[in-house]
Amino acid sequence: MMEEVKVIEIKKSVFAENEKDADALRKELKNKGVYLLNLMSSPGSGKTTTLIRTISLLKDKLRIAVMEADIDSNVDAVRIKEATGIQSIQLHTGGMCHLDAEMTRQGLDNLDLSDIDLVVLENVGNLVCPAEFDTGSCRNAMILSVPEGDDKPLKYPLMFSVCDVVVVNKTDVLPYFDFDLEKCRANVRMRNPQARVIPICAKTGEGVDVFADWLLEDVKNWKQNK
Amino acid sequence: MMEEVKVIEIKKSVFAENEKDADALRKELKNKGVYLLNLMSSPGSGKTTTLIRTISLLKDKLRIAVMEADIDSNVDAVRIKEATGIQSIQLHTGGMCHLDAEMTRQGLDNLDLSDIDLVVLENVGNLVCPAEFDTGSCRNAMILSVPEGDDKPLKYPLMFSVCDVVVVNKTDVLPYFDFDLEKCRANVRMRNPQARVIPICAKTGEGVDVFADWLLEDVKNWKQNK
Repeated sequence: MMEEVKVIEIKKSVFAENEKDADALRKELKNKGVYLLNLMSSPGSGKTTTLIRTISLLKDKLRIAVMEADIDSNVDAVRIKEATGIQSIQLHTGGMCHLDAEMTRQGLDNLDLSDIDLVVLENVGNLVCPAEFDTGSCRNAMILSVPEGDDKPLKYPLMFSVCDVVVVNKTDVLPYFDFDLEKCRANVRMRNPQARVIPICAKTGEGVDVFADWLLEDVKNWKQNK
Repeated sequence: MMEEVKVIEIKKSVFAENEKDADALRKELKNKGVYLLNLMSSPGSGKTTTLIRTISLLKDKLRIAVMEADIDSNVDAVRIKEATGIQSIQLHTGGMCHLDAEMTRQGLDNLDLSDIDLVVLENVGNLVCPAEFDTGSCRNAMILSVPEGDDKPLKYPLMFSVCDVVVVNKTDVLPYFDFDLEKCRANVRMRNPQARVIPICAKTGEGVDVFADWLLEDVKNWKQNK
């Protein structure tokens, strides 16, 4: 199984002006009709499990591909491919803590985009650096898991301010942690009044339909505004 | 309460050669008899709760001070001070995802080290960048919490290879997560055969004495080898 997944060794970007490059990539994707979602979070917050659940709900409605970014290992890309059967590749960042637009482009170049509506980029698990680099995505989303605590928007302001959606994962363990969902909503609002907060449990699937519906709607709207 | 804690806005380091600078800081600390522990982890893994428990066990045996590094907020330094009464300051990294030796020095300059045996630096919550920068510490330790998963050594190799101790926190929620302690030990060993793995539950205090005993012993040995 391990050989079935393509592993791309990403080279460090040579473009100094990442913002311009990100805007250019966004335009190219618009022309191709490919919506790119940049999904960020801490390590171990459940990005891959959430993605598998979401893809299962959407794969009859949208043509989806996934790029899994990690410093090392290909476990995530293999998991996605085995669970959903969709196009899934692993990007190795060569020790880098984030992806910028050029690095994202290197990943996209290794996907067959001819019949794809939605590409999800699972960014490196990190609440700091990925927030600082525009990947060229149409939309940024993040996952905050219950065990991490409801105070994270206080400590990692930029991440919360650049995300349109904050998925709160692992709600099944709410009884075992001091995590106040209302306090979390208030903390998110402080950093980003427009951000939508969606509580889910990727393990059981609870609430994932709300996230999937939002994503489906957003992809459709984005395609219509072409 | 909020005014009682000193908040230091750290300036970006101007030293290009961090390794040399870190070695110099380590020597200075040796001369002063101050042991510096660099504590790293993902966001929300329980660094501050673990520290409070550890300090409570050690504060009659060692004179301890703490530096809490975060991009923003001073909640951690306030928590430490309120819970333990020891010297505790907050370092703001100005958006930086890690601390290097010069930034660590700026923090140390704001502590009264005249009667201190042990300074704990709680680094920015991040499994990537802090591992790349030697802070000048005598020892690196990290916390991996059960909800993050036992596969983290596969994805964040450098962090695990630079740490002498891996504290596995939140063992109280082992029944609710797919986390295999033996698999975790094997994954850590793969990255760092010398690393010690210490399972604890900072919430209940279980196992924290093992970590505290290791730290006490290590500080004593280090002082004797002066």
